Amino acid sequence: MESKYRPMWEKLALNLEAHDGLLNVLGNVYQDIYLGQKNRPEGMKYFDFVMSEVHGLRIQELLDAQQQGRKIIGSFCVFVPEELVLAVDGVMVGLCAGADVATEKAEEFLPRNTCALIKGFFGFALADVCPYLATVDLVVGENTCDGKKKAYEICRRENIIENLYIMDMPQMKSEAGLALFRSEYVKFAKELEKLTGKTITPASLQRGIQVVNNKRQALQRLAALRSADPAPISGLDALLINQVSFYDDPIRFTSAVNQVCDEIENRIQAGIGVFPKDRRRIILSGCPMAVPNWKVPMVVESSSAVIVGEESCVGERGFRSQVDESGRTLDQMLEHITQRYFQIDCAVFTPNPSRLEHIKSMTARTKADGVIHYNIQFCSPYQIESGWVEKELESVKIPVLRIDTDYSMDDVEQIRTRVEAFIERISDRELSSST
Amino acid sequence: MESKYRPMWEKLALNLEAHDGLLNVLGNVYQDIYLGQKNRPEGMKYFDFVMSEVHGLRIQELLDAQQQGRKIIGSFCVFVPEELVLAVDGVMVGLCAGADVATEKAEEFLPRNTCALIKGFFGFALADVCPYLATVDLVVGENTCDGKKKAYEICRRENIIENLYIMDMPQMKSEAGLALFRSEYVKFAKELEKLTGKTITPASLQRGIQVVNNKRQALQRLAALRSADPAPISGLDALLINQVSFYDDPIRFTSAVNQVCDEIENRIQAGIGVFPKDRRRIILSGCPMAVPNWKVPMVVESSSAVIVGEESCVGERGFRSQVDESGRTLDQMLEHITQRYFQIDCAVFTPNPSRLEHIKSMTARTKADGVIHYNIQFCSPYQIESGWVEKELESVKIPVLRIDTDYSMDDVEQIRTRVEAFIERISDRELSSST
Repeated sequence: MESKYRPMWEKLALNLEAHDGLLNVLGNVYQDIYLGQKNRPEGMKYFDFVMSEVHGLRIQELLDAQQQGRKIIGSFCVFVPEELVLAVDGVMVGLCAGADVATEKAEEFLPRNTCALIKGFFGFALADVCPYLATVDLVVGENTCDGKKKAYEICRRENIIENLYIMDMPQMKSEAGLALFRSEYVKFAKELEKLTGKTITPASLQRGIQVVNNKRQALQRLAALRSADPAPISGLDALLINQVSFYDDPIRFTSAVNQVCDEIENRIQAGIGVFPKDRRRIILSGCPMAVPNWKVPMVVESSSAVIVGEESCVGERGFRSQVDESGRTLDQMLEHITQRYFQIDCAVFTPNPSRLEHIKSMTARTKADGVIHYNIQFCSPYQIESGWVEKELESVKIPVLRIDTDYSMDDVEQIRTRVEAFIERISDRELSSST
Repeated sequence: MESKYRPMWEKLALNLEAHDGLLNVLGNVYQDIYLGQKNRPEGMKYFDFVMSEVHGLRIQELLDAQQQGRKIIGSFCVFVPEELVLAVDGVMVGLCAGADVATEKAEEFLPRNTCALIKGFFGFALADVCPYLATVDLVVGENTCDGKKKAYEICRRENIIENLYIMDMPQMKSEAGLALFRSEYVKFAKELEKLTGKTITPASLQRGIQVVNNKRQALQRLAALRSADPAPISGLDALLINQVSFYDDPIRFTSAVNQVCDEIENRIQAGIGVFPKDRRRIILSGCPMAVPNWKVPMVVESSSAVIVGEESCVGERGFRSQVDESGRTLDQMLEHITQRYFQIDCAVFTPNPSRLEHIKSMTARTKADGVIHYNIQFCSPYQIESGWVEKELESVKIPVLRIDTDYSMDDVEQIRTRVEAFIERISDRELSSST
């Protein structure tokens, strides 16, 4: 692949051949899934551009930032607080984990029955095809699930990821759990200060809080607009925006999201949608979908439904709550940040009752007809919760389809058959309740 | 099955038919695997008796204890401190989880790719065939792995296990992790006081510490004697003793173990073993084996090897370390208990370096020729550690065989083939190094 970024990738010691292959596949998939969509908001052009430059211009920007003395922090999880990174003038980016890359190599270190996301980040690292990983100054791993927790150990032992920092996590939302969580955030703040040689001040942290709150607010605004019928934006595009939130500069991103929202508001007023009115509306709930994991949304929206919300870390779970901005001292602000992130209802917590409430309220707010619970195979926390989610939602007459899959495309037609049957089920239900 | 305990089981609301079936199978398996062994120490008769009465006399004893106002505490894990239970004059027992029972029913609540131990305890509970579960006043679940943590949630929600108390666990051996662990032990102590209406006093806790230390000391003594060649006791019998340690009265058990040890010391002096001298010696390392999970040891010892140690929770990981007895105040004693249990090198901790050191030192002490890493399928923490264990041990010339299996007998012959090839490998090695 000829690209002006080739020297940059070379300098980052990427495996150029494998990286070319990856970009080719990614480009084709994006072309097929995204650019083939009809009636997209004009504002999506920005996100198409970001995606086309996700291994190019954005990496160049990160390298430029490094040149200016800023540090780049990579993460795999929404529990890593960007506010703190911004408070030391750092840049936070998500790391590649959304595709099958070098799976055989990854399975030399990990059991086959490890979830695709974990095998994915191993594969990206082992094959030297993640320019983000090649750029970052620090990678923050977090002890969320057993799989990640033990996989990070291997990364360290085998030096698969350099500069790996581990953030511990509690398992219960108890007082002791909160104390552990808080102490980890304090430790992380110190680590960032050490790494950057910069001191977190009330002013720098307040700015960090505001920037990330603004970003989340824009995403909340977008989420709220998706209640409209006809749907003013596809689920695929909304997911893309959420995915891009992990890569892009937060201020520029926020502005682009608000621009799309402005446009969408006009669309709603004009009754314009991406799909016809009265299309069946679906909430996706469960495991996060990292770029380019678009399989299930693609199947849903190329069947006769539209996704109107993602109850996911790459979705509302990730941006639902805000940091209280009333803090004036560092301690207060850090406490507010801790409190905010401690609310995230990831399935690694036990029990995790608010997640169910959130799925229900999202379903009501977006007037969804049903919920598809998406699970990445071998992700025990979400897989085990899915039984409860299904039972509880069905008991209040919210239809649920559980999909347990990986990143391969082998089961696309099988998923399509199940999704179509599900859409038929919720359509019949609609029909019978309206007659 | 006619039994004098039938009225008792009926009163405990066991499913008599299913329970009869289970006891039949258990009896036959025990007959085949245990009573078919040759040259067993006389002292094993006690443990044979305990096993023959494990659903009979022992349950009667527990019911008698309840009649006397004592409380019965059930657990699934070595992180539940028996010292505290004894300090409120309680009785601690392990709960059934070592066999496939009502698997289909269990899979209505749990994903198929859940480990056999978790599906086992669900199955026992759902099928009403665990007399321990039917007897206990409190069940202590603990947030060790993702599977258990999320499975306990279902138990609570669906009322599959009544009186379920959850003990939280940290994931790292950090200061904050220790603080969380300590606070959970304090909370558990209070829960026990509430349950029993008894107060933990320095005297009662000291007695609890001594009783459990004595039990562990007896198990340590047994473990040390297994260094002898010829092996004075089979691995199956040693495993059985460890398994019985979770069911039996601790004082009576300690005395029975010491009696076997006295006998074994005489055997060693007389050069008597259960197998001929120079038999290949194996350490089993990994997941715990609950009654009646004897598949792999049975295969190993019916091939031409002997197991000389278990690096397992039902083994040295469970009894290796002692509680410091120098504490005089409640706080000191509780701190010593906390410190002792915090040392357990379960794979749920990250990182977990001491486990490797322990496997190495066990191998050296017992003059083992190789290590079989035993993993219960879908147990991510041990499964992921197994790669590291294998690599590190092989690098210091300790041969390793990794076995990943469940409770079914379907793969016995496949395991036998692999075990025999492994024994051949370590025998050839021995041969080539001696020539």
